[in-house]
Formats: sequence, structure tokens, C-alpha cells
Amino acid sequence: MTRVGIVGATGYAGAELVRILSGHSDIELTALTSRQFSGVKFDCIYPSMTGLVDLVCEELSVERLCDSADIIFTALPHQLPMTFVPEMLKRGKRVIDLSADFRFNDASIYESAYQPHSAKELLEQAVYGLSEMYFDDIQSAALVGNPGCYPTSVLLPLIPLVRSEYLDLKTIIADSKSGVSGAGRSLSITSHFCEVNESFKAYKVAVHRHNPEMNVALSREARQPVEITFVPHLVPMTRGMLTTIYATPAVTLRPKDISDCYHRAYSGKPFIRLCPEERQPDTLHVRGTNYCDIGFKIDERSNRLILITAIDNLVKGAAGQAVQNMNIMLGLDETAGLLSIPFPL
Amino acid sequence: MTRVGIVGATGYAGAELVRILSGHSDIELTALTSRQFSGVKFDCIYPSMTGLVDLVCEELSVERLCDSADIIFTALPHQLPMTFVPEMLKRGKRVIDLSADFRFNDASIYESAYQPHSAKELLEQAVYGLSEMYFDDIQSAALVGNPGCYPTSVLLPLIPLVRSEYLDLKTIIADSKSGVSGAGRSLSITSHFCEVNESFKAYKVAVHRHNPEMNVALSREARQPVEITFVPHLVPMTRGMLTTIYATPAVTLRPKDISDCYHRAYSGKPFIRLCPEERQPDTLHVRGTNYCDIGFKIDERSNRLILITAIDNLVKGAAGQAVQNMNIMLGLDETAGLLSIPFPL
Amino acid sequence: MTRVGIVGATGYAGAELVRILSGHSDIELTALTSRQFSGVKFDCIYPSMTGLVDLVCEELSVERLCDSADIIFTALPHQLPMTFVPEMLKRGKRVIDLSADFRFNDASIYESAYQPHSAKELLEQAVYGLSEMYFDDIQSAALVGNPGCYPTSVLLPLIPLVRSEYLDLKTIIADSKSGVSGAGRSLSITSHFCEVNESFKAYKVAVHRHNPEMNVALSREARQPVEITFVPHLVPMTRGMLTTIYATPAVTLRPKDISDCYHRAYSGKPFIRLCPEERQPDTLHVRGTNYCDIGFKIDERSNRLILITAIDNLVKGAAGQAVQNMNIMLGLDETAGLLSIPFPL
Amino acid sequence: MTRVGIVGATGYAGAELVRILSGHSDIELTALTSRQFSGVKFDCIYPSMTGLVDLVCEELSVERLCDSADIIFTALPHQLPMTFVPEMLKRGKRVIDLSADFRFNDASIYESAYQPHSAKELLEQAVYGLSEMYFDDIQSAALVGNPGCYPTSVLLPLIPLVRSEYLDLKTIIADSKSGVSGAGRSLSITSHFCEVNESFKAYKVAVHRHNPEMNVALSREARQPVEITFVPHLVPMTRGMLTTIYATPAVTLRPKDISDCYHRAYSGKPFIRLCPEERQPDTLHVRGTNYCDIGFKIDERSNRLILITAIDNLVKGAAGQAVQNMNIMLGLDETAGLLSIPFPL
Repeated sequence: MTRVGIVGATGYAGAELVRILSGHSDIELTALTSRQFSGVKFDCIYPSMTGLVDLVCEELSVERLCDSADIIFTALPHQLPMTFVPEMLKRGKRVIDLSADFRFNDASIYESAYQPHSAKELLEQAVYGLSEMYFDDIQSAALVGNPGCYPTSVLLPLIPLVRSEYLDLKTIIADSKSGVSGAGRSLSITSHFCEVNESFKAYKVAVHRHNPEMNVALSREARQPVEITFVPHLVPMTRGMLTTIYATPAVTLRPKDISDCYHRAYSGKPFIRLCPEERQPDTLHVRGTNYCDIGFKIDERSNRLILITAIDNLVKGAAGQAVQNMNIMLGLDETAGLLSIPFPL
Repeated sequence: MTRVGIVGATGYAGAELVRILSGHSDIELTALTSRQFSGVKFDCIYPSMTGLVDLVCEELSVERLCDSADIIFTALPHQLPMTFVPEMLKRGKRVIDLSADFRFNDASIYESAYQPHSAKELLEQAVYGLSEMYFDDIQSAALVGNPGCYPTSVLLPLIPLVRSEYLDLKTIIADSKSGVSGAGRSLSITSHFCEVNESFKAYKVAVHRHNPEMNVALSREARQPVEITFVPHLVPMTRGMLTTIYATPAVTLRPKDISDCYHRAYSGKPFIRLCPEERQPDTLHVRGTNYCDIGFKIDERSNRLILITAIDNLVKGAAGQAVQNMNIMLGLDETAGLLSIPFPL
Repeated sequence: MTRVGIVGATGYAGAELVRILSGHSDIELTALTSRQFSGVKFDCIYPSMTGLVDLVCEELSVERLCDSADIIFTALPHQLPMTFVPEMLKRGKRVIDLSADFRFNDASIYESAYQPHSAKELLEQAVYGLSEMYFDDIQSAALVGNPGCYPTSVLLPLIPLVRSEYLDLKTIIADSKSGVSGAGRSLSITSHFCEVNESFKAYKVAVHRHNPEMNVALSREARQPVEITFVPHLVPMTRGMLTTIYATPAVTLRPKDISDCYHRAYSGKPFIRLCPEERQPDTLHVRGTNYCDIGFKIDERSNRLILITAIDNLVKGAAGQAVQNMNIMLGLDETAGLLSIPFPL
Repeated sequence: MTRVGIVGATGYAGAELVRILSGHSDIELTALTSRQFSGVKFDCIYPSMTGLVDLVCEELSVERLCDSADIIFTALPHQLPMTFVPEMLKRGKRVIDLSADFRFNDASIYESAYQPHSAKELLEQAVYGLSEMYFDDIQSAALVGNPGCYPTSVLLPLIPLVRSEYLDLKTIIADSKSGVSGAGRSLSITSHFCEVNESFKAYKVAVHRHNPEMNVALSREARQPVEITFVPHLVPMTRGMLTTIYATPAVTLRPKDISDCYHRAYSGKPFIRLCPEERQPDTLHVRGTNYCDIGFKIDERSNRLILITAIDNLVKGAAGQAVQNMNIMLGLDETAGLLSIPFPL
């Protein structure tokens, strides 16, 4: 049985990995690391899992971790994974990194959005882990750069239409709304309850680091430079992300063209659900799941296509897609460990 | 002292009118009507106001109401006000209607969005009550059609730029997010706590009735037909509305051009606050107030202007702007009754 | 494979039954009924389950339902199940009723709290389904009256102490706090988002119908009449119930006496988790689970024992305990279908 | 016009003082201090007040502050005010302290709950600022120890009944529920949005520092030692506190006895509202106000009296009561600045 380790297990994405992997019957979760809580039982940090998860968090030692795990998830802030992932790969481990460190093949783009990269030699081989799009590359990857939550919600509805050359690429706008868990467990006034509750606001308007990530992915698919406008907002709720995308069609489009395009692209893809015309995606319907629900509408008066996606930012936007990638890498059923029945409310 | 009556006082907009007018020292609140709660003390429906509001709700009788009030607010669903407002005007009363019934001068547009209009003869004289824009017309109006909450949040940032011919009118998109109080006090599964809480979704995508209201106002200002794309969303919070607007500039625009334009348009307008560049509007900052906070950002990479407004949907988006209009009509200070210090949180 | 039907599948408790039973590998969910939504696909009412639950809701026909199911859950308001459960039993079906109709062996107590009972002849054989307490009776029961959510949270911590004669029975007070889903999916101003959000209040103070249910169960265990004081409160959240119980000890009690008592009572009971002294139960830790977390504290200064329990009102307080009872009745592992890993947040 | 200064203006209680005092027409707010934000404009920290509050936060200098203010509010954590309040009094200033430092006349009780006291000589003259109870002492006080939020919600309903000798003093239990703003603006995992949202829990069970404060006040009124049981809980909302109190009557009590007792005690007290029997207090009804709403119920079956109070923890529980005390000290109308009409929702 494949042994799995998680670096940074006590952050929100890490804990979500623990949740999913603890219920995954094809692997064995063997090691959790945490800078802040080394030596502490995981269920003392997340008491919901008392009686279900019995691991103790340890300080990160690459050597020890590589001894106890065959595949490793790294769920730390960017700039940290690049310092130890090379050593893990050298020891023959496969790594799925949830930070931005290995999402870009071009170091200069990464460096202009983040900071200098100390493991550029790995960027060429790193695979961008948008599961539905790059299945084959992921399958054979040693290193997967797991997509950001916002890019996941933006790229899944756009890439099929871009590939079909349905869109005027200069007109794409993504207006995203995220639950607060996306900001993580680190203390910050912007995640302080009384500052978030009953508040709605935009942040990092047109300067969010996920914007270049989207641009790179879309440019590759379009084989020409694409710059989209991206504005993220914060919703007073724990989980969930809704993205509303606006674009002008490049050709005359009827609703059937759009739905056919999605059916072609996502037939056999278990985590993409196309909403019927009379119902639009709702974050409540994907809460705790790995689904990406997609809806669309053509506004004929203003000649504009509107796309809407809902995901759980911690699942399809982070830990769930990471496990989906692991399943693909290990040749398991893509849905293994990811199909628990969601709550009705 | 001017005597004021409210028709439909127990809905959320009506109750907000009661709140504001009870603290307004230049008028006297003399009559409240309610279909559902006639004969019931107002503070039994809204116990927060116990000891502060002593009126009993009565059945609507136009005659009795006109005897006891000089100016009348009507806060009922559309289609109802048109049946009794003509009689009120005949009796020499001035009316501020919060429904859509008197927002359109052109009956055919109203009728295509709503239903047949039974008081078309009043539409020409009715003034669209966007206070900051149509001060003079409002001052002398007998009948004011108070703007919808979404149009208020969309038009206040757009009109100055449209008047300056700064925008490519074909490119305007408004992505709005509203608190749940906008849906009113009537029971509906879409306002049921467990369906809204921890949920975020779009609704009436590109078919909301406030869209034609925006188009009419912008077309008038632009002197040419304008069709904008409009998508409203529901936020799991009680009060507040944030609108994010996207448009391509028609001319080269620097940030200073935008701020200068707003300063020209809104100098001396006490309820418009332009946010400094480093801070964007937040619904929490306008909660319970009549302010419209405006922020903007030019996304140079994608050549797009982003405007953001925050209002309280029940105040500047409904009852507050209605009282502001009353102040203008009565020659009072525009801010009378509307300047209570907002909560820090 | 046992075939299972649910009467009233589209209410919140019914939908939670659908969720749990859809993931239960030892049974087959064969029929759902709904008065309001007959003929509608279940996943149109609860879109989260799209792709996972494929049943269509049907009108209740006892005959048809008994043909397609071996065991039946009834999740309707009280007074309805008593009209058709007798017929189901006659046809040899086993029934787990989530209403109050079959929780009382003494019809007169039921009738003083509810209304006349039309199937009194069944009350003697009906088993009160507090799973941890009445395992043997449940195992052989044809008809289980599933406990109310509040009684579950009150009785699980109290019964072991009452059996040990540790408490002065005249001093027991239960102060409960429930999420809004407990009020169900039926529209009501008391579940209207804006009336609940940012609100906290008590309701049905000392007159809630679950109070006699608690009294009956405690009196039976104590072999003398017990009347406890019970006040429920409404918390602005979707799921979860926390109960704080106060009682004066009848004997000198040290913390070890309490924990020993619970260990004796609940050893081998997988859904009871005793919290360590330094951490008290939190509804967030049991969200979506069938756990009942129990904490306690002796306040020596005031000579009072404080007990605290957290459950998910829809799971251990309703659908989860019902499935636990089904597992017991069918001789399955008590935890079958009920051990999905809970969310970290 | 009396000049007023606030020490610690950028915490939540401090900011609430700024809100209330900015709208108070009988005083002038002249100085704000903040350790964290000295040199920053107050409305940069709380943008809601932009255009309404024009002060800049300064470092605390007792000398400078005493030069610019006649009366001073100190809104800092305990242990800090005792270090500079003596100097303020020496300079002839009157001080209202919102911390616990001057709430106890007996230093030993303070020291057993908090830490050593460095200004014990002031404790005898310090007046406990429970406005409705100690009006005369407050009027002439140089130093007021403003009550804690929990004690305010517990003492206002209890003291009149204790004075009337209606209660068995050994049986009093207070079960309190507070919004998150009570924990202040300092960052803490316990106020982190995702840890609080959809969570309900007790904390500091029977060891909260407000418990001795209640005991001291009740013992003084009862002229005998009183030890009550007190358990606070955290509600996922920003503002509001509800306390449910249980006690066994010492004499036979009918509802009229209770309401008569309250009418006697609170006649002419504008901030106490007794709820009618059919409606219990709700935090939503007192949000943003200085009211304390009181409800009660006699549970005859269990022979127990139940009292329920609702306050806004930041207003009547902190800043509002502090301003009420200032009004009393200055001989102003007790309600000055404190009667803005509350929101309907």
C-alpha cells in the first residue's frame, strides 16, 4: 500500500488533506509535519478527528519523511517548498506541491509575481496539476504543481471554450468570490471574525498573484498571449468559491454550442457537473466536495457570454484536486477517496 | 412641521424608513400602514424600537392617510402603488415611491420588464430620484420614483464617467453582490436561513428587472442606447451591497483623470466618499449609513477600468435615499436625519 | 441486500437520511416519498447530490412503499406517522419514526404535550431509540421512536450519572442551544435569514415539547418522578446543538468519579467521545458526524456539576441516530455508513 | 463644553466610545490614544467613520492628555490602567475605566482573579458603575470602574430580586452567550473567522474572571456571601449578549410579583425594558443600543424562576454604559448621546 506523507498538515489545506486521505482506502497516511505543532497529536489541533486520526505531528526532516512515505504532499506557503522538494525528488519520491512554487514552467514569470526561485532546474519537469486537463502529464509526473483555487475556478470553464476558439481573448474578465478559509489559518486582521462577518469587499484588485497563473495557462492553450482582468472578493462564509466570468464571443454562439463544447471536453470527467439552464451553481452545492459545477448564460442584448463556476476552495481548489492528482499518478480510480455524499445543507 | 406617512411600513424598506424618520427632527411621522399587521403596534413587529416608536399600523385608506400626512412614502411591491398614488397626487400630496412603478418615463419599457401600467399619465412628471444626479428635478417633484438598490450602486460611479465620455459604452459590465435583506420580509425558500447561510450564488443572471432601469438611465446620460451586462449575486449577510464594474476606457485614462472626474461630480455631495487608492470599499464601512463609497483601479495590462461601490441596500439603496429625496423636496439640509455615526463593526 | 424507504425525504432530516443511506454499503435505498415534490428528482431539490442520488420522489402509497422496502424511515411532522405506521407494521415492515409519535409508551403524556393519539395500541411495543442506552430492545424492535434532538443531547450525559445516583434529581437544569436547521425546511419568519442572522434568543421557555420527553426518560431511569428545567435557544448557524446541564451532586464527587462513570457506561460505544478536561465540546467538532462529545466540570465554589454536550442536531439528533438504530436492528456494525471523516472546519 | 479623551481608542470598546461620543452634542471629543496606531488617523482604522471623525491617534502621554481633556475614558486591558490612572486623578481629572482594575473595592479579590494591584489606595473611592443601581455614588465619583459585560447582564435582572429577598441565593446559575466582539480586536485563533463561524461552545467554564465580580456585587446586595455558577459561551455573531439565569424562589412567587418588583426598581430608568410575557429578549432587538431587555418565566413544574436578559456587549456591556456614567457624573440627561433609533434588523 502506498505510504503518504503531508508537509504542513495543520494549515487548512493540510488538514483537508488529512481528512480526505484518512478516508482513502488505497493509501496509508504515515507522516504529518508541522512547524508550529511538532510533537502534538493532530487531533488536538483538529478535535473533530478525534478517534479517527491517530498521528502525531513532527518537525520536518526530509530524510525521515522520505523513509516513511512514497508520495508527499507539501502544503506550505510559497518559497518554502522550493528549498526541500529537490532533495525529495533526488530520493526518488513523487511530490504534489500545493504552493505556487512549481506551477510555472517559466521562472521569470514566477519571479515577477513572487520572489527569486531557488530550484529553477525543476520547473521544466513540473506538471501543472489541473486534473481534468493534463491527465497524461500528471500520470507520469514526479512533481506536480497543484493549481491555485482561483485559477481552478477560472480555467475549468474557460479552457474548453478557448480551445474551440469561441472567445474574443481580449474581453475576458473573471470576478471571483471566496470564502475565508482561503486565507488560511495564520492570524490576520483580515480573517478576524468581526472584520469579516457582515462584510463583503474586493481585495488585491487586479494585482492578485493568481492572475499571472491564469494568464500563463490560457496563453498556452490559446497559443497567443492572453491577459484577463481578475478581481477577487471575500465572502463572509468558511468554504466555497464562486467565479463569474464575462467574455465576448468570437463567433455566433447558441446555448447548445456551449453545452456541446463542455460535453465534449468533460465527458467521462466525474468531477465536472454542468448545471441545467434554469439553475446556476451555488457554493452550498459543492461544499466539502471535489466537484466543479459550471453554469452559463448568453446575454444576447449585450452580446456577452457569462460563465459561472462553484467549487469548494479547500477541496477542488486545493486538497481535493491534489488527491485527484495523486490518484492519477498512482493509476487509481480518479475518484478514490473523493466521493463522499455531500450535505444537503 | 411636515407630517409624514408610510405605506407598507412593516416590510424591511418600510421599517428602515420608520427608523430613519423617527430620528429626523424636522418632520413628524404620523401614520403607518400595513396590510398584514393592521391594528398592531409597530414595535410589536420590530421590538428593537420599543419605547421609541409609538404608532399603530393601520389598513391603507387613501383618504385617511392624506388627511394625516403631507408627504407620503410608499414601500410596497411594484404594481400596487400605481393603483393609489394618482389619488394621493390629486389630493395635493407629494409621494416618494420605493417600488419600480414610477422609475420609468417610458411606459413600454416598464411594461416589458414588469406588467401593464395603469397610471401611465403620471410617468412623464415622475422624477427618477437618484439624489446626487437630479437634485433640481427632485426639489420640485410631486412624485419621485426612488431608484432600485442595484441601479443606485451602478449609476453613481458610472454617470460621471459617461458624461465625460470616458468609457466605451459597449463594454460595461456590472457584477453586483447583495445582502439578503434586499429580498424583503416575505417568506421564500431563497431567504430561508439554512439555504442562504454558507451559500454564495448568482441569480436572475442577465434577466434582472433592474437591468433595464440601469440601461435607461445610462442611455439618457450618454444620449445613445446603452446595454450593460448585469449579474446580481446573493451574499450570506443581512445588509450591504457591493458592485464591481468593468469597462474599457474610450480614451487614455490615468488614475488622476478618474479621481478628478469624481471630485468635479461629487464635490459638495455629502454621501459620496471616494476611497483612497490603497483601500477599496467594504460593505461593513457603510452599514446602516446613506453613504456610497466608491473606489477604482485601472488594470493597465488588460486595459480595463474597474469601479467598486459599496452601499447599504436598505439605506442608500432604498429608505435612506428616499429620505434624502424628501429632504431635497422640502428644502431641508440634504443630510437631515441621515448622519448618525456608523458602527465601527 | 436490505431495501430501505424514506417517507418525507425532502425535509432536512429526510435529506440527511438520504445523504447517509446513499453512502451506506450494506443497504439499498429504493424509495423516497415527498408530499410537496412528488414526481421531482431528488437531486433537483438538493443539487449537491447531483450524480450521486438518482431517485425520484413519489407520493406516499403505503402499499407501494411496502412492496419496495423492507425497513422504512418516517421523517414527517408528528401526528402524520401515526396514521400509516400501523399499516406498515401489519405488512411486516420495520419502522424507524423520527417524529414524536412513538417516543412515549404512555399515551396520556404524549397527548398532553401533542394531540390525541390514534395508534395507542402500538405504544407499548415501540422502543425509544436512544441507541447507546437501549441496544437490546432496539435490536428486536419492529417500531422505533427515534429520540428528539434536544433529549438526545440531554439524556446521553445524564443517564449514566442518574443510574449511579450521583445527582440531586430536583436540581437538574438543561440550557440548550440549537442551529437553525432544527426548525426544518418549512417557511417561517423565525427561520427567515434576516431575523436569525446576528440574533440570539431563547424560545418556548420551559414549555418545549421535548421537556416531557426528557422527564419520562429520566424518571424511568431514576425510578421516581423527575422534572427538569429546560430552555432551548436558537444559534445563528445551520447545524449543531450544544447543551449545558447544571445539577447539584447528591454525593461528594471528584472529577475521576464522573469520568469513571462515563467510561463504564460508554466503553465500546463508538459515538460517545469524552473530552479531556482542558477542552470543552464545540459544535464545530461534531458537524456532520454522529458523535456526541461530552465534557464536564465540577464548580466547587458553588457545589455544582456542569455537563456539556455537542451533537449535530441533524445527525446524532435525528438521521444519524436513526441509521444507527437501523444498523442495530439489522445486526450490522453500529457504525456502518456513519464514519465519514469530519471536516477540520 | 466638557472635553473628553479616550485612552485605547482603537480597540473595539474604544472605537464604540468614539462612535457614541462623536454623536454626543454636550461634549467635545478632543483626544484619542492608541499604542498600535499612534500617528494614524482614526478613520484609517475604522473607515466607516470617514468624514465624521477627524482625530489622529496619539501615543499616551498622561500630561498631554490631561491638558486636553476634562474627563477620560480608559479602554485598555486590565493591569495597564492602574499604572497611570492615579496620576490622572492627581491632576484633577475624572476617569471612567472600562477594565477590571477599579471594579473591586477589596484588592485581595481582584488579586486572586487577576494579578497584584499597584494602586490599591484608589480602590476605596472607586465606584462600581452599574448605572441603574449606583446613580448617586456615580454622580459624585472621581473614578468609576465600569462593569464587565457579563456582570451587567447578570446583575441588572438579579439585584432587584435579591434586594426583595425573593431568591434562594444558593441556587443561582447564569448561562451567558456572547458575540465575538467581546473578545476584542487582538488577534487570536479563538476569534479567527473559520474557527468561530458555524461553531458554538462554552469557554472558561466556571473559571471566568467576571464570576467573582458578580459574586462581590450580589454579596454586597444580599449582605451575605453569594457564589453563583457562571458559564459563558461564544456565539457566531459580532455583537450581542444573552444571559439565561436560573434560581429557585425563596418565597412563593407569581409572575406579577416579579414584574412589580422590576417596575419598582426600574421605573424611570430609560434603558431597562421589561419584555411582555409572550416575547423573550433577543440580541437583535438591542443591537447597537444601550438597552437591557429583561424577560422572565416561572417554571412551576420544576419550581424554578428563569430570567433572560439581552444587551449589546459593546454598548450597555461597555462603551454605552460608560457614556451613561459620564452623563450622570456631568449632571447631563442620562440618555444624552445614547438614544439613536436602533435598526429593525
